Amino acid sequence: MRTLLPLLLIPGAIAWAKPGEDTLAKVREAALQSDFAWRQLATLTDEIGPRLTGSAQADAAVTRLAEAMKREGFRVTLQPAWVPHWVRGDERATLVDFPGRTDGLTQRLALTALGGSIATPAEGIRADVLVVHSYDELDARKADAKGKIVLFEVRFDQLAADNGHAMEAYGAAVDYRTNGASAAAKVGAVAELVRSVGGADYRLPHTGAMRYADDAPKIPTAALSAEDADLVDRLAQKGRVTMQLTLTPQSLEPVQSHNLIVDLPGSEKPDEIVLLSGHLDSWDLGTGAIDDGVGVAGALGAIQTIKALKLKPKRTLRAVAWMNEENGLCGALAYAQATPDALRTHHAVVESDSGAGRPLGIYAHVAPSVVATLKPLLTALKAIDAAIVSRRDDEVGADVGQLEQQGVPGFAPMVDTRRYFHYHHTAADTLDKVDPADLKRHVALQAMLAWWLSEQPEMLPRNAAADVKDRFQPHCPKP
Amino acid sequence: MRTLLPLLLIPGAIAWAKPGEDTLAKVREAALQSDFAWRQLATLTDEIGPRLTGSAQADAAVTRLAEAMKREGFRVTLQPAWVPHWVRGDERATLVDFPGRTDGLTQRLALTALGGSIATPAEGIRADVLVVHSYDELDARKADAKGKIVLFEVRFDQLAADNGHAMEAYGAAVDYRTNGASAAAKVGAVAELVRSVGGADYRLPHTGAMRYADDAPKIPTAALSAEDADLVDRLAQKGRVTMQLTLTPQSLEPVQSHNLIVDLPGSEKPDEIVLLSGHLDSWDLGTGAIDDGVGVAGALGAIQTIKALKLKPKRTLRAVAWMNEENGLCGALAYAQATPDALRTHHAVVESDSGAGRPLGIYAHVAPSVVATLKPLLTALKAIDAAIVSRRDDEVGADVGQLEQQGVPGFAPMVDTRRYFHYHHTAADTLDKVDPADLKRHVALQAMLAWWLSEQPEMLPRNAAADVKDRFQPHCPKP
Repeated sequence: MRTLLPLLLIPGAIAWAKPGEDTLAKVREAALQSDFAWRQLATLTDEIGPRLTGSAQADAAVTRLAEAMKREGFRVTLQPAWVPHWVRGDERATLVDFPGRTDGLTQRLALTALGGSIATPAEGIRADVLVVHSYDELDARKADAKGKIVLFEVRFDQLAADNGHAMEAYGAAVDYRTNGASAAAKVGAVAELVRSVGGADYRLPHTGAMRYADDAPKIPTAALSAEDADLVDRLAQKGRVTMQLTLTPQSLEPVQSHNLIVDLPGSEKPDEIVLLSGHLDSWDLGTGAIDDGVGVAGALGAIQTIKALKLKPKRTLRAVAWMNEENGLCGALAYAQATPDALRTHHAVVESDSGAGRPLGIYAHVAPSVVATLKPLLTALKAIDAAIVSRRDDEVGADVGQLEQQGVPGFAPMVDTRRYFHYHHTAADTLDKVDPADLKRHVALQAMLAWWLSEQPEMLPRNAAADVKDRFQPHCPKP
Repeated sequence: MRTLLPLLLIPGAIAWAKPGEDTLAKVREAALQSDFAWRQLATLTDEIGPRLTGSAQADAAVTRLAEAMKREGFRVTLQPAWVPHWVRGDERATLVDFPGRTDGLTQRLALTALGGSIATPAEGIRADVLVVHSYDELDARKADAKGKIVLFEVRFDQLAADNGHAMEAYGAAVDYRTNGASAAAKVGAVAELVRSVGGADYRLPHTGAMRYADDAPKIPTAALSAEDADLVDRLAQKGRVTMQLTLTPQSLEPVQSHNLIVDLPGSEKPDEIVLLSGHLDSWDLGTGAIDDGVGVAGALGAIQTIKALKLKPKRTLRAVAWMNEENGLCGALAYAQATPDALRTHHAVVESDSGAGRPLGIYAHVAPSVVATLKPLLTALKAIDAAIVSRRDDEVGADVGQLEQQGVPGFAPMVDTRRYFHYHHTAADTLDKVDPADLKRHVALQAMLAWWLSEQPEMLPRNAAADVKDRFQPHCPKP
């Protein structure tokens, strides 16, 4: 055994002997062995399904996960939040006239209403389509827009997504999904459509939130499948295209829903919180496995892993399953309003909301000086090949963004997002899209990050005002 | 110029000087320059759309292409055929009870009726689901099947498809789609479902033909999306799963439809026909671009290419756009019945019905001695990287199979089919799935094949009886 001694004296080996890193390895191995997160994810998706804010499914998800975490011995709080209650109705679009049409024949399109859209009249809207490829083109052709259905034919940049820039690709396209309706309404359009935001070609419409500007008439809005947007574009290049469009969504009365808050109290600094999170609500087309069942299961799995090891974190570890990330951020708003002293009480906040892809590392919305201190954490993350760190100077999560805007440091897993927007906000966001081994890596990453944060001797430096943006703004009903 | 002379004397260069090969190259280059086929394909898909047998769209497709080919100066014949007229109705499936369900909640599934299915009662069927993974398992569990909805959870072998065995993978899975309903009915099932036959994971149900056995009760049948079949399988492993299923398809009265026959008469042997073909009908979910708009456009494009070059084929070149390949083969039957002397009058038959993938070569259902004679053709096909030849001893096409069964040699393009069954029989079979450059290669392949066949000095040997199978059997209404 003598030959081992020199190995223990080399620097790399010494690092393993530090107690903190030993615990990180223990946490990691426990996470990689556990199926707790998978079982919670299966409850959310297979047993409950779509969890649109305001639905019975969303409430059931809160209840079911609260019960599961109580059974694990956690302190569980349901935090009330008033949330919007939008419901999808019928949705049909048919091309009733176009160049080359055979008399009497029409073409049926695949589309889905955007969250928040108003309805068309019951008999639908029949109007010609104006296809534009940018706001600039709409501006140039605004004289043609009056009385038309405007289609923003803006392609999602899958090449950028394939090269690690999925979020930038999403941001560029989602501007049209969010704001296109009001832009079109301002120039007289009677309805507005967008090309679905995503990179796959399986004729799936992608829903998502939209927002009406205060200074524009409200018009109905929906996403066409990529295929159908391209079809309309091709036909419109040849001549006049007329569409019959029927959408019957409704905005019902706001309801009270809840964030689920699960605490593992700190042993030394219980008033300083390390918050892990994902969002519990989903869109209504799929079962919300990658958006964002994985985030919730990952956060709950992380604190369950630490508790099951009977570890005593210095700070309080808190897992939050947010309500209403998708169409309001009203759970996040309720939390922020209930936590006016977050800057003092929240050591750091973590949100996982970029899908189920294999973790590559972490985004860190922290002061530059913090990055160097992450080294022991990164050494531990290297064991799951997730040791890339990317400092960000804006919010890393929509829900935790409300706290980051106060200066609280934020973290998020960096994951393989190349295929995330193939499924995002579609009917195909289902449990099979999650690799159980990758989910375990998600749990391991969040658990190691949480443990490392909780054990820091000093509070992490607060972010400077210059590093606080307001990328994410809640839009919530009054109770 | 003197330096060119030695080049012309080397063997390879001499080969180029042969008149026949020179023409093959000319045909190929013309095909690669032309957008004629693309324009016909756009008519079928963008302007007409789904072309289910019996529909107004299917008739419009016959009319529109007949007009287009007449404008090109061809002799055009509409050959009558009595065809089935099945129409899709509503289709809904909901899991109303299952292990882990929260009281009051249900899960909606994505599915589509199989072509030929009868309807459920108007109020639907409510029954427990028996999930089996093979006929053997159904047999072993037949005592459990009475009164159940049987789900055949049989996975499409995408790995085989990725390795060039897409057709074998399809054949293995499609047995359940075709025959599963009667197998389930024989053991007392009240309805039968299959996992969609295809390799993609975008929650797309894949339709397709099924057939009721004469000795079993008829029960409704549909294809679940792969995701939903897997969901039901997972839940059923935990306990009882109850489904509410409503399908309202109808089999209407048979109608008279038509094959489109387009001839370029032969200059020396006009009574010997080289037949090129694809099928004009499609399923009703997508616009039938890859199945089989490409086959039709490729065949029409091939003879148009040869005619536009003012070439005079020795034999008659005939392009056929078959009606009713998908759910009856009644166009093919009408042709075979009208051509009792096909063995004598049909030099060879070609069918393209494996999608729009890049051509790799040809399948040849010919006598072994013929393969060696293909060499000049293969040299010409090498220029489009499509020189693989695979001799087959059974029919290469469902429509031309009726003629191959008489002993007529058959050919088919061999194409990249790795992604074909991602889209096959789904809503996502649309024009964008076709690469215009690959379509030109399809036209080039068929045009070269047709020209080579037409110019053979002797008739190709007829296939021996031992090489004649009956893989494809028409099922057609009486007028």
